[in-house]
Amino acid sequence: MMRTRPLKVALLGCGVVGSEVARIMTTHADDLAQRIGAPIELAGVAVRRPSKVREGIDPALVTTDATALVKRGDIDVVVEVIGGIEPARTLITTAFEHGASVVSANKALLAQDGAALHAAAEQHGRDLYYEAAVAGAIPLIRPLRESLAGDKVNRVLGIVNGTTNFILDKMDSTGAGYQEALDEATALGYAEADPTADVEGFDAAAKAAILAGIAFHSRVRLDDVYREGMTEVTASDFASAKNMGCTIKLLAICERAGDGGSVTARVHPAMIPLTHPLASVRGAYNAVFVESDASGQLMFYGPGAGGAPTASAVLGDLVAVCRNRLSGATGPGESAYAALPVSPMGDVVTRYHISLDVADKPGVLAQVATVFAEHGVSIDTVRQTGKDGEASLVVVTHRASDASLSGTVEALRKLDTVRGVASIMRVEGE
Amino acid sequence: MMRTRPLKVALLGCGVVGSEVARIMTTHADDLAQRIGAPIELAGVAVRRPSKVREGIDPALVTTDATALVKRGDIDVVVEVIGGIEPARTLITTAFEHGASVVSANKALLAQDGAALHAAAEQHGRDLYYEAAVAGAIPLIRPLRESLAGDKVNRVLGIVNGTTNFILDKMDSTGAGYQEALDEATALGYAEADPTADVEGFDAAAKAAILAGIAFHSRVRLDDVYREGMTEVTASDFASAKNMGCTIKLLAICERAGDGGSVTARVHPAMIPLTHPLASVRGAYNAVFVESDASGQLMFYGPGAGGAPTASAVLGDLVAVCRNRLSGATGPGESAYAALPVSPMGDVVTRYHISLDVADKPGVLAQVATVFAEHGVSIDTVRQTGKDGEASLVVVTHRASDASLSGTVEALRKLDTVRGVASIMRVEGE
Repeated sequence: MMRTRPLKVALLGCGVVGSEVARIMTTHADDLAQRIGAPIELAGVAVRRPSKVREGIDPALVTTDATALVKRGDIDVVVEVIGGIEPARTLITTAFEHGASVVSANKALLAQDGAALHAAAEQHGRDLYYEAAVAGAIPLIRPLRESLAGDKVNRVLGIVNGTTNFILDKMDSTGAGYQEALDEATALGYAEADPTADVEGFDAAAKAAILAGIAFHSRVRLDDVYREGMTEVTASDFASAKNMGCTIKLLAICERAGDGGSVTARVHPAMIPLTHPLASVRGAYNAVFVESDASGQLMFYGPGAGGAPTASAVLGDLVAVCRNRLSGATGPGESAYAALPVSPMGDVVTRYHISLDVADKPGVLAQVATVFAEHGVSIDTVRQTGKDGEASLVVVTHRASDASLSGTVEALRKLDTVRGVASIMRVEGE
Repeated sequence: MMRTRPLKVALLGCGVVGSEVARIMTTHADDLAQRIGAPIELAGVAVRRPSKVREGIDPALVTTDATALVKRGDIDVVVEVIGGIEPARTLITTAFEHGASVVSANKALLAQDGAALHAAAEQHGRDLYYEAAVAGAIPLIRPLRESLAGDKVNRVLGIVNGTTNFILDKMDSTGAGYQEALDEATALGYAEADPTADVEGFDAAAKAAILAGIAFHSRVRLDDVYREGMTEVTASDFASAKNMGCTIKLLAICERAGDGGSVTARVHPAMIPLTHPLASVRGAYNAVFVESDASGQLMFYGPGAGGAPTASAVLGDLVAVCRNRLSGATGPGESAYAALPVSPMGDVVTRYHISLDVADKPGVLAQVATVFAEHGVSIDTVRQTGKDGEASLVVVTHRASDASLSGTVEALRKLDTVRGVASIMRVEGE
């Protein structure tokens, strides 16, 4: 039952991911046709630099006029792998207006304007798929949207940025400091020349927004995600983590909050027990834990970035969208019916590991403990070390709200006997 | 855009999984309606023992006449959680003939008659979904059928039976023998009174057949899967594995064979390096590695059995099938276009760990090494230990075909100096 007239695909962007998408569309044309039920044809490729030689791509297909390409009217599916907000946003909405469905790998855009893009897709009866926007080749969007559609997801906890995981893994295994590990990541091509989006957690926060929205059937935008980067994590933090039987990961955490009437989404470095499966995720790999009522704990693991893995996710979506196109159906659209509000970071409840530099004299521990008690933060363990009049206190708390912990720390800083708060780190995954 | 007329669901079987499906359909009715776009209604429940009290299920819905239920004609989706070949097979085909789509958790049936069932579904324009048939709640069928539809899967390697993983994990961590570990699994409810299907690898082999068929777009039946159980794994094998930096898992392995023109599928115990992510899959958990051209290595991890996790997978399929029903479309059917033949076990190429009891006298190693060489099996390492005229040789080979290895072992058994072949185990995951 193979249709012979091909479905037409327009490719916006032909960088690392786009060129791999084009390559696989050519080399695996027969397989794709069998899996779709019709051949697909690369109908145009919009690029910024048309003069660049692109192996395997017919130069006649290359254009700098992306707008004209998406307006052609004969395009079945637009694959957007440009990234960034504009012109991607306008091109995608224009594509819907002119009858195309869209496959995108654009996490920043989805995290900022996902609702509007979904609305445009629905208005025009078209598909918007974006598996490649989160964790590269790892199937996450589809399992959350479809496999778990009959379950209640309570928590998504994951390593969704390969660059930072590479750096933290390097610090953990070699004792290197942040800068040294970053330099190695840059030299090996795991970190970009400007690593800000990765190391400050913006990339992970965009992914957290997308995952939280889908998991909780609510709208969560990038601005709703609390974000702390990992540039201040030190070798000394790793030593503290080891003492706790933990390592440190940059985690994206999306949870139902309080009585389940709201959600929280956050990205920050955290200690996680070595026995937790996320602790053994090495190098630039990604992994995401999903906890649900019925299915319990699921984990999805794989390469979170790179041209070929991301292209695999794009092509999986392309096959699905083409199949929908042939059957005249559309896949799952935005599901935001639960409309749960996003609670602020202060409402998050977790455990904390706090290192204090204190005066080495009697009564300090009592003073510090009193401050914790006054703020309703219960202490699990305290370890005191000191010499030559200097001492340090390491406090690990029971579960407390982030607001209570912030209040505690503020009060601790005012104590004469506390010379400084050396580090505060959340403890997750228990 | 919610349709008010409900979609009607018939449930065949109301045991551990079925009762959980019914429960979630009731308790999460509003969520399911939102996610589907129409409410769903439990229209009938076919059981063997109608007198049993089933909490939360209207007794008026309960019937012993499953055939009449699937023939009603007003049923949109039949959920089959009876298991076994008959009457499940006839009920499913009857359901298609009477206009229903089917969600099944029946691995044995799918592994034996998947092609015929898919053909019946396609003939009647209906869906056949079965995520719950493999690895409980872990999304595997959907990622393979859809997420990786644009990729080329080369290998599926996994722990797909929780009972045997529990037993092997127990043997590994406590040094217990097989029987002791089995007894504990039985006492804790992880093993059935008759554990044959699990410990002899039949359950895993059915899952391997299903996974191989989907991964390679070819037909692979239960009979095509080479199968060895794990009842002969000893504490001494675990000691040998530890010496190798390995543990032992019962693995299901589906691979492209030779030049890619055929596939192999097998289930057997194997040594796997402790550094491999599958080595740390504990207790009754399942995990499956999928290796593909573009996406690289993906892993899917979670509870592989149990009422609630399996129900989660069934309900995810139910939502998808109901959505298809509303849009008048069908999801992906059987994809067997590649039609790759299944090669016999002799063609499988892997490494081997062989323990031999030999006479403790000069020249034995030379004799043994000659036998390996004559069969074209290259030796990686040999370790010789001995006292009081008895000795043992542990040989680890480089990659060789299973046929060559079998020939080697047969010849070794004929040597006067070889008193016995204590164990042969494959080494995977490197």
